[in-house]
Amino acid sequence: MNVSVVGATGYSGMELIRLLANHPSFTVSGVYSSSTAGSRLDAENKQLHGLTQLVLKEYNADEIADTSDLVFLALPSGIAKDLVPELYEKNVKIIDLSGDLRLKEHGEYEQWYKKPAAKAEYVQEAVYGLSEWNRPNIGKAKLLANPGCYPTATLLALAPLAEQGLIESSDVIVDAKSGISGAGKKSSNATHYAHANENLSIYKVHKHQHIPEIEQQLRHWNSSFEPIMFSTHLVPMTRGIMATIHAKVKKGVTSKEILDAFVQKYEKEPFVRLRGENDFPSTKEVYGTNFCDIGFRIDERTDRVTLVSVIDNLVKGAAGQAVHNANIMMGLKETEGLQLVPVFP
Amino acid sequence: MNVSVVGATGYSGMELIRLLANHPSFTVSGVYSSSTAGSRLDAENKQLHGLTQLVLKEYNADEIADTSDLVFLALPSGIAKDLVPELYEKNVKIIDLSGDLRLKEHGEYEQWYKKPAAKAEYVQEAVYGLSEWNRPNIGKAKLLANPGCYPTATLLALAPLAEQGLIESSDVIVDAKSGISGAGKKSSNATHYAHANENLSIYKVHKHQHIPEIEQQLRHWNSSFEPIMFSTHLVPMTRGIMATIHAKVKKGVTSKEILDAFVQKYEKEPFVRLRGENDFPSTKEVYGTNFCDIGFRIDERTDRVTLVSVIDNLVKGAAGQAVHNANIMMGLKETEGLQLVPVFP
Amino acid sequence: MNVSVVGATGYSGMELIRLLANHPSFTVSGVYSSSTAGSRLDAENKQLHGLTQLVLKEYNADEIADTSDLVFLALPSGIAKDLVPELYEKNVKIIDLSGDLRLKEHGEYEQWYKKPAAKAEYVQEAVYGLSEWNRPNIGKAKLLANPGCYPTATLLALAPLAEQGLIESSDVIVDAKSGISGAGKKSSNATHYAHANENLSIYKVHKHQHIPEIEQQLRHWNSSFEPIMFSTHLVPMTRGIMATIHAKVKKGVTSKEILDAFVQKYEKEPFVRLRGENDFPSTKEVYGTNFCDIGFRIDERTDRVTLVSVIDNLVKGAAGQAVHNANIMMGLKETEGLQLVPVFP
Amino acid sequence: MNVSVVGATGYSGMELIRLLANHPSFTVSGVYSSSTAGSRLDAENKQLHGLTQLVLKEYNADEIADTSDLVFLALPSGIAKDLVPELYEKNVKIIDLSGDLRLKEHGEYEQWYKKPAAKAEYVQEAVYGLSEWNRPNIGKAKLLANPGCYPTATLLALAPLAEQGLIESSDVIVDAKSGISGAGKKSSNATHYAHANENLSIYKVHKHQHIPEIEQQLRHWNSSFEPIMFSTHLVPMTRGIMATIHAKVKKGVTSKEILDAFVQKYEKEPFVRLRGENDFPSTKEVYGTNFCDIGFRIDERTDRVTLVSVIDNLVKGAAGQAVHNANIMMGLKETEGLQLVPVFP
Repeated sequence: MNVSVVGATGYSGMELIRLLANHPSFTVSGVYSSSTAGSRLDAENKQLHGLTQLVLKEYNADEIADTSDLVFLALPSGIAKDLVPELYEKNVKIIDLSGDLRLKEHGEYEQWYKKPAAKAEYVQEAVYGLSEWNRPNIGKAKLLANPGCYPTATLLALAPLAEQGLIESSDVIVDAKSGISGAGKKSSNATHYAHANENLSIYKVHKHQHIPEIEQQLRHWNSSFEPIMFSTHLVPMTRGIMATIHAKVKKGVTSKEILDAFVQKYEKEPFVRLRGENDFPSTKEVYGTNFCDIGFRIDERTDRVTLVSVIDNLVKGAAGQAVHNANIMMGLKETEGLQLVPVFP
Repeated sequence: MNVSVVGATGYSGMELIRLLANHPSFTVSGVYSSSTAGSRLDAENKQLHGLTQLVLKEYNADEIADTSDLVFLALPSGIAKDLVPELYEKNVKIIDLSGDLRLKEHGEYEQWYKKPAAKAEYVQEAVYGLSEWNRPNIGKAKLLANPGCYPTATLLALAPLAEQGLIESSDVIVDAKSGISGAGKKSSNATHYAHANENLSIYKVHKHQHIPEIEQQLRHWNSSFEPIMFSTHLVPMTRGIMATIHAKVKKGVTSKEILDAFVQKYEKEPFVRLRGENDFPSTKEVYGTNFCDIGFRIDERTDRVTLVSVIDNLVKGAAGQAVHNANIMMGLKETEGLQLVPVFP
Repeated sequence: MNVSVVGATGYSGMELIRLLANHPSFTVSGVYSSSTAGSRLDAENKQLHGLTQLVLKEYNADEIADTSDLVFLALPSGIAKDLVPELYEKNVKIIDLSGDLRLKEHGEYEQWYKKPAAKAEYVQEAVYGLSEWNRPNIGKAKLLANPGCYPTATLLALAPLAEQGLIESSDVIVDAKSGISGAGKKSSNATHYAHANENLSIYKVHKHQHIPEIEQQLRHWNSSFEPIMFSTHLVPMTRGIMATIHAKVKKGVTSKEILDAFVQKYEKEPFVRLRGENDFPSTKEVYGTNFCDIGFRIDERTDRVTLVSVIDNLVKGAAGQAVHNANIMMGLKETEGLQLVPVFP
Repeated sequence: MNVSVVGATGYSGMELIRLLANHPSFTVSGVYSSSTAGSRLDAENKQLHGLTQLVLKEYNADEIADTSDLVFLALPSGIAKDLVPELYEKNVKIIDLSGDLRLKEHGEYEQWYKKPAAKAEYVQEAVYGLSEWNRPNIGKAKLLANPGCYPTATLLALAPLAEQGLIESSDVIVDAKSGISGAGKKSSNATHYAHANENLSIYKVHKHQHIPEIEQQLRHWNSSFEPIMFSTHLVPMTRGIMATIHAKVKKGVTSKEILDAFVQKYEKEPFVRLRGENDFPSTKEVYGTNFCDIGFRIDERTDRVTLVSVIDNLVKGAAGQAVHNANIMMGLKETEGLQLVPVFP
């Protein structure tokens, strides 16, 4: 099967190329990038030197539809939305890695992204691709909204407890931390090495656009969920997200019940690794892979549970989950191209 | 005035040496280190090459008392407590940077530090040295317990709000992050560069020994305070602590009231820099200095306030606050030796 | 085919496990580690959580010979040499990743490693495994000495020019730089994060044990080679080696001749990527892979050529080259298990 | 005395502000920055929060001349040259931190900087400010060309040996490494954290504009000096330069003679710390200070000496040396404002 990647020189696009290079069923037939069209892909991204003959091209919907079974849109939010309608009509399956199609409630996208929203029909049509929680719909999807990096880490930890009602729905605090690749490839003051190195900062306090995405899903599992407190930090490392979640457990809920909820949901999942009670993962333990590792511990003094969920933001938080979803959409074995072992140390 | 440093080759000890080197009123008369006695201090710590002629010596209470007006104990917890009684009798002022004398409540030290506690009379005698909040007592102290790094960052942000009753006393979550120098100079798996670099981890979940220290102080300002949720992370950087605090504001409390509480308390303080509403500091902005920078923002959606407090863990979180306290104890100008500008970038 | 790994929890051993996990022809049948025998491998190395059921065992030559076609010895220098004789007699193929079997000249090992040498018969028997330059012998080897990390990077760049006589044999300066994983997993002052971070140091000046290994090979290709100047630096990063080589070109030698020498030797090589004239690789462009990337440029002002060669020290400089050699020794396709794309960024 | 800083928000400018903040004799009377004029300096550079009331202004030569005894030009190369003539006429002393006035030989600036050169009369008038080697002229200077960062590290190590003829003048190789702040504050692909972190690269191979500056000085001490081989690397750290120098010692020259040459020249120097034979400094040992630390060792096998020289590129390599020169120019004690202890770890 042939796939195309639009936005192939951004960080998510590069990571798609890395994963697809060893995918047994997908061949990358086209790579598109408006800013570098005409260059060889391996000239733009030297780490690929000699590994590909592909030449970057101007975006072309007809060509994509003619040559590809599926297209990955790895573009900044606000751009993908304009490409979707034409591609959709042309009958190529679409996985959009941006936030353009994730928020279903009218007005939320504009409020949080401060940009015009995609057309409502495509937003409604798009299947939310949190792989472990939406398989049946993903399998039938023609248009998929790949989850954000923070929502992936946060939701995979919260979902089993939210769904089974083990935590209070009114009192969830998520303190999230990300490596700097999460800010994207565009250079800026904040991503300058001399600024970011040996530095820890908080950003977009109470205003991060991933907040409504997380809340939308929580309400999906448990309609009583109230707004969460969600903060995001920039950590001096390239890859990795950790969501540290402080939730109030419902009266009488035990560690065993929490563990059981996780085991029941995830024990057969290939990419969620439950680390168990008081065994907490660190970000590097999933480096370069599609794993989400989860640990937890109840604090008897405060009746809160601390959940820790780690992912590689570029893999499980972007390109890896996209490939996972592509596998599901195409009826392939889910782990194809994703059997990676963390690069450690 | 002459001062001695016991434990001069650990990180806090080294930082004391750095700060005291340019102190206009203190001269370091003796440096003590059992493991490296006999070596020149600048041979052990090459960054000091040529800046000092001091030779490290075996600990000797008589010598310290004879030569020094004040002694800094920069030792691991569990060791300082055994040195204090003899020094105390010999009439030299003592600043203990360890946790040995901080917890006043019987049994708490053993419970959290898992070690035998110091003699109760010295624990009771020791003045808690959170400089901005305990000046009158510090000025009269003969024996001072210098605060821990996490408590310093956490308490300076929480104290004005706790004291004035602007936040709920039952619902404080502190998500704290520290650079790796906080783990001390002793090498281990966790501090190996290849393990810590590009890695973010959580540790001592719900069990950090700084928890009772923070709660003791909160109850001091507001006896109704309940246990806090406090978590600690290791961030791939050398220096810096950030405490991200998620507190429930009391009904009707406004940003202006919070700002006023901070201004009222800190506007004349030389080492607390209020950054104001929605102006959040990053750790590097206080690098190498005794500053604590604080920013905050209320989230109307959840009625919580996010407070961010940053310090250099080795300065304001250890050696710098110790020098500040020494200045107060000796009746000097408080900023002596501490007028440092952050090293940035 | 079954393989065993002795020293499975050191950095080279861990990297062998990572590579072998996806190897289509090799199965890891046994993992040995004296210090952690009895533990599950994935309990010692959390990044492997759930990916393996293997339990670490005490070293046992009989068991290894009974169960394995080939054994990797991933041990510190000075230990492997004592295991080799027994294993060799038991008829299992051996790849030794340490320096114990590399130096053929009597007395050199003792001089540079400051330890007793292996028995001469095994040293002589051992085939030097610089894959691209010794294939025929590697293919027949029963006992293989896997090259050191610095020699691999240095020799792959120098060999074509040395062999073809394009550079002066009396004037080679190698300024080499390594990430900190090169120092091994054992923690020490030098590898403490707070010491190594934001720090660049030189070490073992003129005394690095890889010097005689490099010179031995250079003399193998060109017996007139004189001692080289070789220096090693520790760079604040986890993985990666760069060898910057400053060699005097012979009178009249052109860039084209140098390029031709590289092309002729390497154009069919799967793991050497020639980057050409004035196109210099950086270490991250080979991160996590078995590639060696090489660039060069002649300086007309000094008649010197600057060669830059980069590898991932744990892959091409250790475990990856070992797997490559195992593939050759076992008659497999050389790229099996090694078709990795660099993790970038 | 009043001084002004033009380019106060670049890295060298920020470092000047840091150093001048604690200078006993200089007061910063004006800060100039075209891109941020109108902002408070401490709003642009948050680490200065509350430490200064200065407001950034548009460049104004009259104002500078009226208010300042000396002006620091901390601007990119190619800009300072246009400001110098007017300031020079107005009778304010000038220290230019750029490369615009360093190269005396006609045509060299254009060749290496690829830009139009400054007017010849100002180039000739400008005194080269390598403080330890040009004091008498610096003391009389009205216009000073502050040395480049690489030349400072390189020349301080080479000068005593070059001047005394202990090394061959035909065979000097300098392998230099710099932290990323050396690339300046402007953000780019190369300085993006995700690109620079865990990465080591070489750049401007044989073409670095500091090459002619170094050679000019070497010929000043020893007119027979031939072109040097000089390479520059970007190391994943913020601050620090290490120059590793591989020079051929003249026949019969001993370690003692080299040591003596260094001692004779530097033993009274406040900012050069001779570390002696086989005692090599690392970059962090001078972090944040004006020190240059030097170590060396002769390699008997190759008759070369390895010299290692480290500086903080923003201090001794820029702002610190500029303040040192300002002290000399103004007849102050040379160490004023520069008695800094390295921030370590």
